[in-house]
Amino acid sequence: MRGGLSILVIDDNKIRASIIEEGLRDAGHEKVILVHQMEGLVRQIAEINPDVIVIDLENPNRDRLEHMFQVSRAVQRPIAMFVDKADSQSIEAAVDAGVSAYIVDGLKRERVKPILDMAISRFRAFSKLTQDLEDARNELADRKTIDRAKGILMKSKNLTEQEAFDLLRKTAMNQSRKIIEVAQSLVIASGLLGD
Amino acid sequence: MRGGLSILVIDDNKIRASIIEEGLRDAGHEKVILVHQMEGLVRQIAEINPDVIVIDLENPNRDRLEHMFQVSRAVQRPIAMFVDKADSQSIEAAVDAGVSAYIVDGLKRERVKPILDMAISRFRAFSKLTQDLEDARNELADRKTIDRAKGILMKSKNLTEQEAFDLLRKTAMNQSRKIIEVAQSLVIASGLLGD
Repeated sequence: MRGGLSILVIDDNKIRASIIEEGLRDAGHEKVILVHQMEGLVRQIAEINPDVIVIDLENPNRDRLEHMFQVSRAVQRPIAMFVDKADSQSIEAAVDAGVSAYIVDGLKRERVKPILDMAISRFRAFSKLTQDLEDARNELADRKTIDRAKGILMKSKNLTEQEAFDLLRKTAMNQSRKIIEVAQSLVIASGLLGD
Repeated sequence: MRGGLSILVIDDNKIRASIIEEGLRDAGHEKVILVHQMEGLVRQIAEINPDVIVIDLENPNRDRLEHMFQVSRAVQRPIAMFVDKADSQSIEAAVDAGVSAYIVDGLKRERVKPILDMAISRFRAFSKLTQDLEDARNELADRKTIDRAKGILMKSKNLTEQEAFDLLRKTAMNQSRKIIEVAQSLVIASGLLGD
């Protein structure tokens, strides 16, 4: 299963790329794709659709680094990034950009496997937390919308809360929609009609 | 400010501890406390109250590693942990235990500073996300409790939703409590009384 991961390696230095490749081969990874071309990276990544991305930047300037952080934000995949030097700001920026493993001055064949494992574990942990947060916020927003819709019905049709909720549910059933969709429509329409 | 961080180094190998100390001194850190005694670590950490913790384990057995992961869970601080070898499972366990930087086969004086910066950045990012999740879940739980309390009042006292909410608010004001506290009391009491 682990051997089945497809790994994209982005590196324009062939010697360093071969260190990474050997480390991946030692770890039993066979699906390794190398990319040397830095133009249109996000599109290339979307086409190749790798499970994990390893980026080696050696000694990047600020623009190059910022470009890679944008790629990281865009692709939403485990990314391990190697650089030779880094200051506190760029380290913080890497974490902010969702780089799962940011390795300063530590490229070594034997370390490629544990770093890849780490990137995958961190990416999963972070994704789960982000998803949990999104779920909780969505549930809260839905609840607020349904409460607003009930309030609109209670006032405009002089209903009790229970009657308002029953009306929302009945309308949803009749239209084969979810209650939240009907509630959203009502809130939007009510805004339009100046209610 | 960064120089003002207090850093606890836990290491029972004096040579490796001195590599870490030198790396910290190079980075301008002066408040460095060394601990060689592994018994009662959580209590020691609570007493010393460091901003960051660096743990060097060299080649730990499974029990030792598990002990350190328990420490990590307990202390809720940025932790950088050095080991010489690791398999995928222990890497995943380290991430689960909230170890902010888990460095496999990478102890080197020059790398101590970037690893410390990384541990602090990751810890902050993870703490913020965890706090946001807790806030969202608390808000949702409060909203559900207030809704249940309103429902109890609407039924037992034959009130409208607005009247029920007004009664909760008035009671809270009179008792110098929060609405959520009054709602919680009502829900608990209602359970007790079999309502």
